[in-house]
Order: sequence, then structure tokens, then C-alpha cells
Amino acid sequence: MSKANDPSLRSWVEVAPDSDFPIQNLPFGIGARPGDSPRPLVAIGDKALDLAALQHAGLLDVPGLRADVLHMPRLNEFIALGKAVTGAVRERLSELLRHDNAELRDNDLCNTALLEQKNLTMQMPVRVGDYTDFYSSIDHATNVGTMFRDPDNALLPNWKHLPVGYHGRASSIVVSGAEIHRPTGQQLPAGAETPVFGPSKLFDFELEVAFVTGKATALGERVSVAQAEDHIFGLVLFNDLSARDIQKWEYVPLGPFLAKNFGSVISPWIVTLEALEPFRTEGYTQDPPVLPYLRYDGKMNYDLKLEVDLVLPDGQSKTVCQSNFKYMYWNMCQQLAHQTVNGCNINVGDLYASGTISGPEASSFGSMLELSWRGTKPIPMPDGSERKFVNDGDQIVMRGWGAGEGYRVGFGESRCTVLPAREL
Amino acid sequence: MSKANDPSLRSWVEVAPDSDFPIQNLPFGIGARPGDSPRPLVAIGDKALDLAALQHAGLLDVPGLRADVLHMPRLNEFIALGKAVTGAVRERLSELLRHDNAELRDNDLCNTALLEQKNLTMQMPVRVGDYTDFYSSIDHATNVGTMFRDPDNALLPNWKHLPVGYHGRASSIVVSGAEIHRPTGQQLPAGAETPVFGPSKLFDFELEVAFVTGKATALGERVSVAQAEDHIFGLVLFNDLSARDIQKWEYVPLGPFLAKNFGSVISPWIVTLEALEPFRTEGYTQDPPVLPYLRYDGKMNYDLKLEVDLVLPDGQSKTVCQSNFKYMYWNMCQQLAHQTVNGCNINVGDLYASGTISGPEASSFGSMLELSWRGTKPIPMPDGSERKFVNDGDQIVMRGWGAGEGYRVGFGESRCTVLPAREL
Repeated sequence: MSKANDPSLRSWVEVAPDSDFPIQNLPFGIGARPGDSPRPLVAIGDKALDLAALQHAGLLDVPGLRADVLHMPRLNEFIALGKAVTGAVRERLSELLRHDNAELRDNDLCNTALLEQKNLTMQMPVRVGDYTDFYSSIDHATNVGTMFRDPDNALLPNWKHLPVGYHGRASSIVVSGAEIHRPTGQQLPAGAETPVFGPSKLFDFELEVAFVTGKATALGERVSVAQAEDHIFGLVLFNDLSARDIQKWEYVPLGPFLAKNFGSVISPWIVTLEALEPFRTEGYTQDPPVLPYLRYDGKMNYDLKLEVDLVLPDGQSKTVCQSNFKYMYWNMCQQLAHQTVNGCNINVGDLYASGTISGPEASSFGSMLELSWRGTKPIPMPDGSERKFVNDGDQIVMRGWGAGEGYRVGFGESRCTVLPAREL
Repeated sequence: MSKANDPSLRSWVEVAPDSDFPIQNLPFGIGARPGDSPRPLVAIGDKALDLAALQHAGLLDVPGLRADVLHMPRLNEFIALGKAVTGAVRERLSELLRHDNAELRDNDLCNTALLEQKNLTMQMPVRVGDYTDFYSSIDHATNVGTMFRDPDNALLPNWKHLPVGYHGRASSIVVSGAEIHRPTGQQLPAGAETPVFGPSKLFDFELEVAFVTGKATALGERVSVAQAEDHIFGLVLFNDLSARDIQKWEYVPLGPFLAKNFGSVISPWIVTLEALEPFRTEGYTQDPPVLPYLRYDGKMNYDLKLEVDLVLPDGQSKTVCQSNFKYMYWNMCQQLAHQTVNGCNINVGDLYASGTISGPEASSFGSMLELSWRGTKPIPMPDGSERKFVNDGDQIVMRGWGAGEGYRVGFGESRCTVLPAREL
């Protein structure tokens, strides 16, 4: 266990008990002050540390930490330095932030290097090379199969043998705070034989977690399950916005396309795998047994609480989903081993999303499709209205955290506002 | 019609009649001399022009042409200057290369700026942001539907209403000359209920053409059919290598994944849309009529001959497919309009591939799956062996060109060698 994870640590920076960013977290992100250029930061409480300023002042002397990567507008080059370096940076920051360490606390540098998060514009933490979306929650896959196919054979034959996944669009992944227009496209009305064209009527979210790769491979190489954690830098929340009516008409036989690539919204801080170490837990038993290249030992799931709020235009909100990352049937190491078993190469900054994370309880379903059971069970909202899917003007807010004793290690939020469809 | 397309033009650089690179073409690529850094080049005959050297010598004074982009290892920044600039560069190069222009011809600069292609290592011409693979050949889709579903209903209900497409893997797109290992993965043997694991037995190519985007859009914006050509910089050959047995087991319900992302091989020179202007032709009639956002006027297809050779380890070869880009049912402008109708943003350097291009004749089918009709019609090879799919040690070579009178405007080749599967 990393020293930086010690539950007894506390910082001289004030951290509220429900903050996602105690000294045990120290996630990395990219943000900019008004009029300044975006740069690598680390979150602590409601503040953020400017890493370049710390290094310039001689407080971040970590072997292998090149100064240039701390001035770049994305974290790819920093992450590519490797876990020996990025892990040592986290350990050193933990030291600097401890309540009993005066190096930074009593230093005028605080005035310029310790920024208020509320004054920052957060940006995409990485340039996303490729993005894969898996489909690894058994409760979600069972719900979808039950609704659209056969309750007695809800899972397709391949589902328990491999982590089903598909390639998604990297360009349309944006950071929390985005405004996303309702997409327009083709839909086939019930009973019709020819499609109509117009704004999607079934706008949905999908509650997901995505991992960011930190170590590249060459084409032809494989990453085994045992090697996979060394290639995973950290995690973010991922809202895979989906237009269910567009999806239904387009997705056979080659998969989802325009139903998914109009915007996906991530949380801005990458929580490192090291910071999530205390939250390891068992996954579901995999039965039938998986093929040898997918076998794993130990606790490869993570107990991370996940929530989705819908916020109405008047500001009232309702938590519509409470789920957990531990419900994944296929874990991240299996996903990465599967992704590369054919020699597919990975780059630093790729994103690999979990697929919708639903749990066994109806309140834990990770999409409106499941929560409203295809619209048959509308969800009452605090203003007296109800929701089958998401309306124009609604905000979708996702949160997630590991619960320690007296602190939590969290992601911050993925927030987006749904705007009306654009005129053609 | 661009002056540079004048069929009567000839160059002081010797160009063989069957060269893909006469003065009417002038495609852009990235190549490196031994020990030198990769840089932007233009092909002429069996030579290539170093654009930075020309500009440095004062021979390439084109308004808006920044010097820095001519020293970069990919063409994205050059292309992003826009067609007004890149088109003017092509026109100026055409002037410089005319048989009656002495500026470069009689200049010592030729010794350093005019390179032998055989001495160059060609590289990826662009950093590929995102890659989409369409499925736009009606003969191909009909063949696949006939083999795997129902000859009387070969096309799925959505096929004639929208250009079906899916997102592919950008990281594994490589340039001609690559060696690609046969992928390993899960397959379901006929009659079995559980999958086996091993090297793919059904290794295939797909003959495709891909366009490279040259102008970015913001998330939420659309590109209409009429605007689309302004966003298309040029075209390359695209070999979408496919493992049919892996594909069959994995692709329901979310589409092809590991069957496709172990390597895709493009030709190194991007042939500009301007150079292909003389080869415009009509497409198939689209019946039923398409929705308004997909309607187009004029000749939006291109008459480009396409060939696939299989080269055996002993060097003997056979042309197994002769097809044509004109067989596309959905044209490139429709594809880009569809890709963006929901607001999906595009970047400079994205690749959009056609899908397998088959024609109506059996000899024009663009994959071994179709040529051998699922392995039921093996193809005799010159060494007495036969092929149902591609063997280890085989090379796959794709070529394509527009045929002018006495010259041809071509792509060069997409060539790859199939290596045995790697041991686990």
C-alpha cells in the first residue's frame, strides 16, 4: 500500500469530509485560469496545485520528471513518463500537503501555485487516441436482453465468454460542463417500413467508468491480464450519451454509430489506480470458466459508489440511479487483455469505457432505458413532471467515489446540459 | 478544371506510361531518406519532391504556405492550411515540373530536392484522429447478405436508407509495406456451443478506398452533402484486414471489434480530390429515394480501377480481383453528411473508408470471402495451390488508378505480408 493512501493522513489544505479530493486521492487534470494557458494540475479539497510552479520553485524534484511535460495542455506526455515517475510525483505531493509539512504551507508560493478550483476552466485531461466502449455489466446486458429479445435467453451466446466491446468516436468525447445538442437522425416509427428524420425522442445517458492507458504497445504485441494494471494510469467517469431511437434503426449489423458519437462526457480529474487501491473488491463469479487468456487472480474489481442526478431547468434535482463499479462482470484487466490479444496496439491516453454499469436493484440501473423500463415506468420528478428519457434543458450529473473511513476518494463530476436539436 | 489536370501536360521528369504519378497527379506523402527525418513530399514518376527544400530555395512561394508545416512528420498541419493553399501548391508544382519550365529542371537543387522513391521509407501520411468504416457497396452487401442470411432479402431494412458505418480502430492503421501477424482470438467451431482459442483460420482482405478529411468542424455542427467536398482533402487505398471466424463469433450485437483492429494497410500517397476530378462518373440510381439530407446532384462517384494481387512466397502472383470505385452505392459526400448529421465533429486527418468495394461480376468481388464464396470456390494459384482465404507468407497488394488518355492517376500500392500468429 502506497504511503500516500494512509487513511490517517490529513492535509494543511482544508478538505471537507464529503470532498472527492482528500490528500489520499491527488488526481491529475488539466485546467486554465482566466487568460492563462491550460496546464497539469492536481486536485486537493476545493483547490488545485500547479505542478509547473511547484517544480520551478524546486519543490517537485522527482527523478525523471521532465519540466516540459508540466507545461503541456494535455497529460499524455506526463503519463507516458511511466508509473515510477507519476507515482513518485503523487507521493511527493502527499508529503508536501501533509498537515505537518511546512515546505509549501508556509511558503509565499501558495499564493500562485495553489489555485481555487472554482476559478479554473477544466479541459480534456488527455488527447484521446482511440476509445473503446465495452458492455461488461451483466445486470445491464441482462436488462437489455430481457427488454429487446428474450427474458429466458437475455444474454447472447458470446457474452460470458468474452468482454463484448466496440470502437467508439474519440473526437466527440468532451469534458464535464459541456452543452450537448439533442441529435437529429433517422428513426423507424413503430409499424413503419420507411424511416423518418428528426430530433431523437429517446435521449439517454449511460453511467460508465473509463480507464486511461498509460503505457503504449507496438502493433502485434499483447498485454496479459497480469500485465494490464501496469498499462492503466487511472479512471474517469464516462457518460455515454445515447439516442435510443437512432440506435435501434442503425445498429444492425455493424453496431452503434450516430446514436453514440454526438457527445460523451467525462469527469476532468484522472483518479490514479494507486489512489483506488484501498477499494479493491471481488467481482461476480465467472461461470462458465473463461478461456486461459482471460483468467485472473485476486481482487480486480473496485468498490466505487456511482450516482446519477437529473437536474431540472428550475434547479431541482433527483438522484435517479445509485450503482457501483463493483458490479462489473468483466474487469478492466480482462478488457485490456482481450483488446490486445489479437495484437491491437494501444497508446497512452486511450480511453476504455466499461459500458453501462447497472446493479441488481432497479434503483441501480445505469440508464433511463432501464430505469423507466423502455418508458413503461416513468420516473416522477420533484416539479411534478415525469421522465421516461432526458428532456431538453435537463442536466445529467454523474458522481463516483470510494468510501474510506472519514474520507472519500472521488472523481468530481461529469455534468452536461441537454440543448434542443439544432435546426437543419 | 484545374490547369494541373490538363491531359496534354508532360514533365521534364521522366514518367513511364503506366506510372501512377504523372504530372496530372502530384499526390502528397510523408517519407524519409536513410538517416533523415520524415517530411512532406510529392510524387512525380519514380521520384519525389522535397517540399521544404523547394520552399527554402524560393521556388515554392505560395501565399499562406507556412514553412513549419513542410518540416512536420505528418501532413495534418499542411492539409489544415486549406484547399486554397494546398491546391495552389499543387498548381505551382505542376508549373515547376512542366517540360518547358527550367526553374527547377536546370537547377542544382534537383540533386537534393528530387529524391528517388526507391530510397525512401514511406510513413503514415497523417496522424489519424478517428476512423470510420462504411459498408457502402451494394454488390458487397448483397453478397454478404446472400451468404449469411437470405438471398431473397439480402439487404437489411436500413441499408438503402442510410450509409451503414461503424467506428474502427485508428491506432492499428499502418502504411504499405507492413508485416501483419495473423491474429489470435476466440472462434466458435461449427456446431459447438463454447468457443475455442487460437490463430484465425479465415484471414481476409477487404478492398477499400478511404478519404482523408481536410477541414475540421466543431461538435454540434453538420456538413451538408453540398459542403462535403470542401472537407475532403484526398483519397488512399485501404486494406481492411479481417479475421472472418473471429468476426462471426464476436460481432453480435455491437459490431466488428478484434476481427478488424489488428492492422489496416493504406497506400502512402494521398491523391487529392482535385487530381481525381477528370474521373467523376455517375453512381447507381438510389431507389427508394433517400431522405433530403442525403440527396445529391451531379457526378459524385469516381471511375477508379481497383485490383488486388495475391503474391506467393515464391514471388509468383495472381490478380484475384478487379473492381472499381464507381460501384459505390453511397458516395463520399453522402457518407460525410451522414456522419455529421447528428453533430459529430470531424478533425483534419480522419479516415473514412468505403467498405469492401465489390462490383456485379464475380471477378470484381473485393474480399476472399466473396471471391471463394465462403470457401466453397477455392481460387487456383500459379504454383498449383489454391486459396480460400489468405495464407501465412502471402502478400496482399492493392492498386488503383483513374485511366486518362495515355496516362493514369493512381495511388501507388497498399502492400502487406501476412506473418504467422505469434505464440502466446
